[in-house]
Amino acid sequence: MSKALSDPEILSIAAGFVDTPTLPDDLMKSALDAVFADPAKARVALQYGATAGHRGLREALAARLMAQGLPNVDPARLCISNGGQQSLYTVTNIMVDPGDVVLVEDPTYFVYMDVLTAAGAHVIGVTTDHEGMVPEALEARLRELHERGLRDRLKILYVMSYYSNPKGCNLSRRRREELYAVYRREAERSGEFLFIEDASYRDLCLEGQDEPFIKSWDAANEHIFLCGTFSKAFAPGVRLGWSYMPAEVHEALIRQKGNQDFGSSNLNQSVMAELLTNGAYDQAADRFRTRYRQKRDTMLAALAEFWPAETSILKPDGGLYVWASLPGIETEPGSPFFEEVLRHKVLYVPGRYCFCDETQEPRPRNAMRLCYGIAGTEEIREAIRRMGLAAEACR
Amino acid sequence: MSKALSDPEILSIAAGFVDTPTLPDDLMKSALDAVFADPAKARVALQYGATAGHRGLREALAARLMAQGLPNVDPARLCISNGGQQSLYTVTNIMVDPGDVVLVEDPTYFVYMDVLTAAGAHVIGVTTDHEGMVPEALEARLRELHERGLRDRLKILYVMSYYSNPKGCNLSRRRREELYAVYRREAERSGEFLFIEDASYRDLCLEGQDEPFIKSWDAANEHIFLCGTFSKAFAPGVRLGWSYMPAEVHEALIRQKGNQDFGSSNLNQSVMAELLTNGAYDQAADRFRTRYRQKRDTMLAALAEFWPAETSILKPDGGLYVWASLPGIETEPGSPFFEEVLRHKVLYVPGRYCFCDETQEPRPRNAMRLCYGIAGTEEIREAIRRMGLAAEACR
Repeated sequence: MSKALSDPEILSIAAGFVDTPTLPDDLMKSALDAVFADPAKARVALQYGATAGHRGLREALAARLMAQGLPNVDPARLCISNGGQQSLYTVTNIMVDPGDVVLVEDPTYFVYMDVLTAAGAHVIGVTTDHEGMVPEALEARLRELHERGLRDRLKILYVMSYYSNPKGCNLSRRRREELYAVYRREAERSGEFLFIEDASYRDLCLEGQDEPFIKSWDAANEHIFLCGTFSKAFAPGVRLGWSYMPAEVHEALIRQKGNQDFGSSNLNQSVMAELLTNGAYDQAADRFRTRYRQKRDTMLAALAEFWPAETSILKPDGGLYVWASLPGIETEPGSPFFEEVLRHKVLYVPGRYCFCDETQEPRPRNAMRLCYGIAGTEEIREAIRRMGLAAEACR
Repeated sequence: MSKALSDPEILSIAAGFVDTPTLPDDLMKSALDAVFADPAKARVALQYGATAGHRGLREALAARLMAQGLPNVDPARLCISNGGQQSLYTVTNIMVDPGDVVLVEDPTYFVYMDVLTAAGAHVIGVTTDHEGMVPEALEARLRELHERGLRDRLKILYVMSYYSNPKGCNLSRRRREELYAVYRREAERSGEFLFIEDASYRDLCLEGQDEPFIKSWDAANEHIFLCGTFSKAFAPGVRLGWSYMPAEVHEALIRQKGNQDFGSSNLNQSVMAELLTNGAYDQAADRFRTRYRQKRDTMLAALAEFWPAETSILKPDGGLYVWASLPGIETEPGSPFFEEVLRHKVLYVPGRYCFCDETQEPRPRNAMRLCYGIAGTEEIREAIRRMGLAAEACR
């Protein structure tokens, strides 16, 4: 990413940035005007707020989550954070001591792996297929933890439930139910651990319909830490995300968040409350979906046109990523292909960054994450074309 | 604070909130309009930014710090944070392992003591007088660390250099020079540790003139971590602070900040860059100073009118706090005075929250922090009057 930022000529389909022309400056301006139209209201927004977040925003978010199928969302158990990232960072820091075990999809969101590694976690991957985490693979890993005497150290199971990063997988309703059942069975039998459901890409559904949150099966709010973000379907620059969790986790999280920053920007939260209630958030999400549908299709068409026929592609139904594999060609940093692509001034995320260090199976070395988030349609087509040339050269 | 927030009738001179009517909604609105006048610029502000912070803001801040007397400020060594709090949280987490020693003023900023305690720090207080940390007391504590075999664990010396929280002390130029000399002598003789200069209240100078940053003596940017905030003299709701530090600390800090949230709101930083360069920040700071001068004087006059003659008061030349002591009357939570004040529906910060757990000397039990930040002049007068009645009742 820093390479891409320092060379303006490079075409980056690496960073998970969002589509700049679609960023809703008009909607944001209107919401800001609404807040500043009343000076007293504006001054309250400019004052300190509550650590857990702006009351109006938490209420609007609770209503939204209930409209999306969650039963009885209590605004008092929500916490607003600086993007989704701070939710993940904070919950990890209250749950994980060095040496504790965290189970993740393999491959998974590599930035979160950095957070886990910094916390000293022992990160273990669970095999995924085209639909996401495989319930039988989860069961197998749990058995292994028992055998290795590590089960007591298990603290977190981390799952991206919608259009995952990096594979773009969307869990089917049945898979959601199965994963939750495996989790509960294990937790009840051998001790509780936290299920983190990361729903960051839920609002970027491009095909089909929304499956229920896995959290829906945790109707009493006792087991799942559900988190999301306003970055992907509205604007990252507003730097707001959220999480919803059981009472005792909430208490610890708020204490940690208080130590970190006393709460996220009260101004931005006031504006986001406005945007959620007046329909502007949904309008922005709709624009992004239209745009990403177009860019995803551009990317898929270019892959079909320029890449070898044996390329394996996961077509995403949402989110920002295409997971691609080139049989026989290694994509790792420093590999001939990576260097050749860089010579063509294109940047992608090598698959190896997304795989756990500890897996039983040999990890595929020829995968990569391609992002259609920030690049325009012509840039996407050109980047894929150049990568096709590189693949040609490396065969 | 949660008590005060839940009962609307209570008069709080406890929380360090800022004066709501003075919050610059007009200046903020103009700066927002300037950013949104150019849709392309607005969309860049709504995108992700660099973890260290918005380039324009760091440049404007560097220019400002140089105008305030710092030599050669390199914007690449600045980091923008979510308020000053996140700077303190983050630097503490990169410097301190459980059992490490941190030296602070006694009394000091109690919220930072929570951060230190959560990090497992061994917090040791250094005696202060009416001017702040006493250089001879610092030397004595350093000698004790050697004697107790703790010197190797010393990681941070934390000093509030302007209108400290809670005592309102402002270090004289001579004291600044002496403290820095003691620090350098010790670090050169027995190993480096980090000097944190917290300048959060510098822009709230109410009397006299600005003394130089202690950081001025660290012209090569090798030793001092200097931090500040835009919360106190502009608006806490914008949630921005900053820090300036040596290269290797910066590198570690940015890595940590990346794990926490990828950087503070790019939108708010774009607006703050505008506010710093167009003079609006200074205009807001000026309004706050005028208002706080009036409120401080109201508080001091009420103290003279309603409290016992033997009350000891530190008159602050800036900041938000008056440190007061009532000889013969304990102010601790649960004390008859505390309960009587609460019965009168007034909330203050008992002095004991601000003292370290570990001090050689018996800690004064009759001190308290009074804040003129958020209460209006009539509320301040009324709160002080009621506390005077409570003091009367407790004699």
